[in-house]
Amino acid sequence: MNAPQNIYDDPEFFAGYRKLRETGTGLNDVLEQPALWSLLPSSLRGLTILDLGCGFGGFARKARTLGAASVLGVDVSEKMLELAAQLTNDDGIEYRRMGIEELSLDGRAFDLVVSSLALHYIPDYRAVLGKIVSVLRPGGNFVFSVEHPICTALPQQQWVRDDKGEPLHWPVDNYRMEGERHTNWFVEGVVKYHRTIESYVNGLIEAGLTIQRLLEPEPLVEALVSIPDLEQQRRRPPFLVIGTRRNER
Amino acid sequence: MNAPQNIYDDPEFFAGYRKLRETGTGLNDVLEQPALWSLLPSSLRGLTILDLGCGFGGFARKARTLGAASVLGVDVSEKMLELAAQLTNDDGIEYRRMGIEELSLDGRAFDLVVSSLALHYIPDYRAVLGKIVSVLRPGGNFVFSVEHPICTALPQQQWVRDDKGEPLHWPVDNYRMEGERHTNWFVEGVVKYHRTIESYVNGLIEAGLTIQRLLEPEPLVEALVSIPDLEQQRRRPPFLVIGTRRNER
Repeated sequence: MNAPQNIYDDPEFFAGYRKLRETGTGLNDVLEQPALWSLLPSSLRGLTILDLGCGFGGFARKARTLGAASVLGVDVSEKMLELAAQLTNDDGIEYRRMGIEELSLDGRAFDLVVSSLALHYIPDYRAVLGKIVSVLRPGGNFVFSVEHPICTALPQQQWVRDDKGEPLHWPVDNYRMEGERHTNWFVEGVVKYHRTIESYVNGLIEAGLTIQRLLEPEPLVEALVSIPDLEQQRRRPPFLVIGTRRNER
Repeated sequence: MNAPQNIYDDPEFFAGYRKLRETGTGLNDVLEQPALWSLLPSSLRGLTILDLGCGFGGFARKARTLGAASVLGVDVSEKMLELAAQLTNDDGIEYRRMGIEELSLDGRAFDLVVSSLALHYIPDYRAVLGKIVSVLRPGGNFVFSVEHPICTALPQQQWVRDDKGEPLHWPVDNYRMEGERHTNWFVEGVVKYHRTIESYVNGLIEAGLTIQRLLEPEPLVEALVSIPDLEQQRRRPPFLVIGTRRNER
């Protein structure tokens, strides 16, 4: 197997990404995170949680303040985990450097597995689902978000615009052709993997998970008021968020 | 409630549609029907079946040759049902003229409810789901196809083309704005209802159905060989097909 992609340790990428997240100018806070959290169990109290692609550890820390028993955060990026460790002072949170596709957690069992905007970087989705199910307790939940297949179908991920730069529509092409897309995000040559909604959904079902909810979230109403540009995000869905429950044996 | 739309009884529409289906030049035979049938129970033997939007009765007759106990076909179009009756000579098949949103089948119970390319004409999807579940036996299946939300988002439902008429990409806009779309298909002013995949999927779950499979089908390989133009249908999914099972009480 090839080494997992580790774009987050590219210094230029890391600087751009860190600024995006710290200034809150990305879509995560007003769109993706509210949707992801809406699909989590109503209480995290006492739960053992695995976060795949944990980044700076923001989810882990928030989950612990809400009563989670423990959170294991996994990420491929050393820089991300360094910053996560600096921001965290909690024996109930553990970070481990590991590519999601290399996941190896023998003997561990979790009540909840979450993954925020990471799985579209992974070439073999079904292999990862098998690993997730192997550490998820029956009746436990797997909740994740990815870039929406409408957005990953074409690598450029850009609106078609008129002469004045106003968005005309979002272009879709090569939807059924799954696989690598080379895109630019802070740096050139970020590799994402496009797959259909069919693949996302049926992979879960075949792995032994029941679909509980599927979201194509739009911005929070209060965010639309303060950041009118966000209205554009209603014109095509930027993310796909799915909540599942592991079937009883 | 407004009377259900009955575009199929418009003479011009009916003539165009009948020709399309009889010549097999539409996408139904090579794309939508194979996907729909792939999600049906492996045997129809002995099943009581309800077909919502039965049209010419093609599904009903095929299901009976495969051993279905009975099929009730419902359609709003008198012309469609006239032709269906002419083509059918089978006491196990009954046709009833009724809009899907007016469905009233007190005391009937079905093992399988199917609906092919009809529900995107219906304004109140959730109300229809409630009626379906009320006549579907626990453990029974509801399987249906609709035009894909990528295709119903914009009313014109056309590729963006270059100077030579070659398709450049499929345009998506107003995805989160659900509701009426006025489009032209044989005649002007056909009304369809756009809804998101989120709405299609979560409506099913909230009605008490478990998602078994979701398809965004592409043309059959053998059809691609004989009709190379079909390759275009892989560039964006024309249909969404979902298979479900009613939860036990």
